[in-house]
Amino acid sequence: MVMTENMRILLASRPTAAPKPADFTLDRAAIPEPSEGQVLLKILYLSLDPYMRGRMSAAKSYAAPVEIGAVMEGGTVARVERSLHASFKEGDTVLSHSGWQSYAVANGSDLRKLDPAVAPISTALGVLGMPGFTAWAGLQNIGRPKAEETVVVAAASGAVGSVVGQIARLRGARAVGIAGGREKCAFLLEDLGFDAAIDHRGPDFADQLARACPKGIDVYFENVGGRVWDAVFPLLNTFARIPVCGLIAQYNATPGDTGGADRLDGTMRSVLTKSLSIRGFIQREFASQRDQFYEEASDWIAKGKLRYREDIVDGLENAPTAFIGLLEGRNFGKLLIRVAKEHA
Amino acid sequence: MVMTENMRILLASRPTAAPKPADFTLDRAAIPEPSEGQVLLKILYLSLDPYMRGRMSAAKSYAAPVEIGAVMEGGTVARVERSLHASFKEGDTVLSHSGWQSYAVANGSDLRKLDPAVAPISTALGVLGMPGFTAWAGLQNIGRPKAEETVVVAAASGAVGSVVGQIARLRGARAVGIAGGREKCAFLLEDLGFDAAIDHRGPDFADQLARACPKGIDVYFENVGGRVWDAVFPLLNTFARIPVCGLIAQYNATPGDTGGADRLDGTMRSVLTKSLSIRGFIQREFASQRDQFYEEASDWIAKGKLRYREDIVDGLENAPTAFIGLLEGRNFGKLLIRVAKEHA
Repeated sequence: MVMTENMRILLASRPTAAPKPADFTLDRAAIPEPSEGQVLLKILYLSLDPYMRGRMSAAKSYAAPVEIGAVMEGGTVARVERSLHASFKEGDTVLSHSGWQSYAVANGSDLRKLDPAVAPISTALGVLGMPGFTAWAGLQNIGRPKAEETVVVAAASGAVGSVVGQIARLRGARAVGIAGGREKCAFLLEDLGFDAAIDHRGPDFADQLARACPKGIDVYFENVGGRVWDAVFPLLNTFARIPVCGLIAQYNATPGDTGGADRLDGTMRSVLTKSLSIRGFIQREFASQRDQFYEEASDWIAKGKLRYREDIVDGLENAPTAFIGLLEGRNFGKLLIRVAKEHA
Repeated sequence: MVMTENMRILLASRPTAAPKPADFTLDRAAIPEPSEGQVLLKILYLSLDPYMRGRMSAAKSYAAPVEIGAVMEGGTVARVERSLHASFKEGDTVLSHSGWQSYAVANGSDLRKLDPAVAPISTALGVLGMPGFTAWAGLQNIGRPKAEETVVVAAASGAVGSVVGQIARLRGARAVGIAGGREKCAFLLEDLGFDAAIDHRGPDFADQLARACPKGIDVYFENVGGRVWDAVFPLLNTFARIPVCGLIAQYNATPGDTGGADRLDGTMRSVLTKSLSIRGFIQREFASQRDQFYEEASDWIAKGKLRYREDIVDGLENAPTAFIGLLEGRNFGKLLIRVAKEHA
């Protein structure tokens, strides 16, 4: 089938709590024309990531929101269909930020060429891309796990968490992963080599976590928040480091949702008495280290020391449902949309 | 008058909220006898510091509590009365940690000899001692103010805050101080050279603070907590640093005191979206930098670039009342008890 239209998914409305399918519109438009210095891209893979929930909201954040009626934002792997840029030719595979659509034009300067010989091209959106770099940079610059220390990460079978735990082990630390359900926990232990895996759905979750961390917690890589934080916090050791790269449990909350007693004063008391370090970050702060990450991670992958799992959903039209599921933890591994077949 | 007894102030009971005079007992005991390697000290100055409230409580912290019936802990400047240690002789002035009493024995290895020619000996408990080093180390290692940045500190006329603001200015930053009352604010502006001073007692305190920080806040040196935190937090800039060395507004609180809505989730959202860094610390973590601090601070004092104010109360028997006042902000400058006259 020759595509003659650009399928796009637009933001139809700003969700107040969890996004619903009606917050998105499926739209068909003409395939855009590249100008001088640009290329026409056919999107192969779209990355779905929790940060996109923030872009759907008008609340102030580190990046501007997607406008109502605009194409949803997102990282993509694409093939060059036509090139008006000297550095790219038809058939090249590139990393772009083209959003939820099947075709796009892009400036050559915004693209990174991918070498399919190094690793499957989809990994440029996962273990070798933004999520993998988030894990690496947060540990390298903030978590700094030392040998024998205990590193805890939640959403541990996901794109960031799975890399956090494996790097922690590669640095000689103990990795304790938190995930939803038996199957994911088994994956952490058997496929990724975590030292312990805890199901956060268990009623005795906090007790289980405490038993899995007999020497306390030295690094808590925060990407979820919510009740995981409450279970982790009392176990933190003096001088513990908490890189904060996400708070997925909060993303669908409406202001004033929690209703419970104020926890801030107690948190600050522990920050003081335990000399804790809490540090939010976005991976682009450490952009200058990307080559170092890529080299180290590619080497680990080649040697089988860093493993990854992808959860690939076919068809751009399924992106809204898949994204809603991501916020509920229904994916298993790095969530991607296969927008078009690689070898079509 | 020749003293023949050791006056001591003991912890009589653990306060549940603000300490009361009845939580202390004035006691008289025999003057202790030094053994080999020890010295007998006559205490000249006792330092009163907010951290002592923590030592009165059994709650877990970074240091063990004072036992009921034991002498209250504290930093002291003392004169050697008798020495059984080769490095000290009668008449030497030393820094010791002898607590709330008029005489003490100490191991020579726990003492630091003071040179009265460098600065008044009382400064070893303030601007050149633990509080000054807390200010210096928190800025040097965590706050790291850059030129033109805005540094905010509360309890700004106190032992730590006054040094924080002055060092911030010496590093080229803008210093905004928060203090209680007109007189203290005038002192910050006129004597210490702060760029702005805000009275936290004003009903429009938060608005005043916002007006004093038109470019936001890059470093908030946290030593009080409470409503100052609430006013500061919305003004923090991306990449702001928050060294946390004290929370005096909380020290007299009982668990569950706050009662308000939970602020933790909102705090963590800002940590993430603004890449904030919150870091608790106790100065002894940076003990290896003490000589560097002492050299730099002594030089600043000699050149009139670093000023200090002491609030000296005569008589050890007045220590409990003075300490209770410290937690209420009634002191003006570094609070010291003159236990005995220097030149008696």
